[in-house]
Amino acid sequence: MTGAAIQAAVEQAVRRVFVSADPPAASSAPAAVTVRRVVPVGVSSRHLHLQPDHVEALYGKGHRLTKLRDLIQPGQFACKETVTLIGPQGKIAQVRVLGPERKQTQIEAAVTDLVALGVMAPLRLSGDLAGSAPLKIRGPRGLVEIREGLIIAHRHLHIGGDESSRYGVQTGDRVRIRTSGSRPVLFEDVIVRAGGDHRMEFHLDTDEANAAGVKNGDLAEIIGG
Amino acid sequence: MTGAAIQAAVEQAVRRVFVSADPPAASSAPAAVTVRRVVPVGVSSRHLHLQPDHVEALYGKGHRLTKLRDLIQPGQFACKETVTLIGPQGKIAQVRVLGPERKQTQIEAAVTDLVALGVMAPLRLSGDLAGSAPLKIRGPRGLVEIREGLIIAHRHLHIGGDESSRYGVQTGDRVRIRTSGSRPVLFEDVIVRAGGDHRMEFHLDTDEANAAGVKNGDLAEIIGG
Repeated sequence: MTGAAIQAAVEQAVRRVFVSADPPAASSAPAAVTVRRVVPVGVSSRHLHLQPDHVEALYGKGHRLTKLRDLIQPGQFACKETVTLIGPQGKIAQVRVLGPERKQTQIEAAVTDLVALGVMAPLRLSGDLAGSAPLKIRGPRGLVEIREGLIIAHRHLHIGGDESSRYGVQTGDRVRIRTSGSRPVLFEDVIVRAGGDHRMEFHLDTDEANAAGVKNGDLAEIIGG
Repeated sequence: MTGAAIQAAVEQAVRRVFVSADPPAASSAPAAVTVRRVVPVGVSSRHLHLQPDHVEALYGKGHRLTKLRDLIQPGQFACKETVTLIGPQGKIAQVRVLGPERKQTQIEAAVTDLVALGVMAPLRLSGDLAGSAPLKIRGPRGLVEIREGLIIAHRHLHIGGDESSRYGVQTGDRVRIRTSGSRPVLFEDVIVRAGGDHRMEFHLDTDEANAAGVKNGDLAEIIGG
């Protein structure tokens, strides 16, 4: 589903489900407008971001990442490249590389993945890597061993500037978001990342998405203050 | 952690965290008693229950399941026996058999497991197997192919008769339970299974436990009416 399609689905759903569900005004006074702060879900499977010298170490000298498809967040893309993660108790093959290259290699995995690998890692926002966990990464041309960079991604909400004003949330806020999939869940402690370079998307990892029975593009709602 | 130890931990925690956290009464009137409905978490990893002829088919004629350790729920136990689950796209080895034997073989797996196997299954309470998913099971002495019996376990609360009265919940109720691990979550739609043969335990699968950052014996709380 493209970003535009998800955006359209959100807007359509807001009109259909929420606005039309409001009870008709009981008097001639103007009807109160209930603002439902609906957000689309984005599920992050285990993946990694690579620093330039690691791209070359894994894929060969002079190699550049190859775009497979754009992600919802502007400038971010899934690559054709995959790696194998190697932990003390297991391996996970075909883990997707996301582009563009970053200053420091970062691996994001769900707890279930970490159990399979036999490692543990801290719960962090992207980019907050000091003291995070080490891991080995194997590519077709070589092996890289990072001393830190493995994290469990902290659940977070990307939201653009206009939408963040409309929804009354700003960067660093901790909000609660309710999903309404087959296994309804209220996720607390969702960190907001707001601003012009973000597109509205509630990022969960696969454990969280599976626990809630939701998939990419499903709708959730910010609850409370 | 044994059932008695978890029970003791619950009682101690209720005293320490909740009762002592109540603010002192501001007047000479009797202090209001706040009933916090605390429940211990029990995490179910993927596992299976076997019908008698499947025990023999997998482990050999005349074989009986061997108890490894008792579970919290009375009469239930983990066995020394394990199997390999075989799906169209993958296998999972060393899946624990739970005893005693049952009338119909039942496999409970998390969505993450089903993705690895390449199958999907319905969300069900234990024992509700009509029309559930098929799967192959390999043991040391043979292979069994079930036509139904694979489910995703619906989150549920086991609770004894006295406790269910005290907590104001009964079998079939749907309650909301809040965990307070590293990733706080309010789980909605938790089905209550109450009665004398249940010991208080909030059963989650590994996806749900990992999404909430909780482990066996952690405390959660029933919220709302």
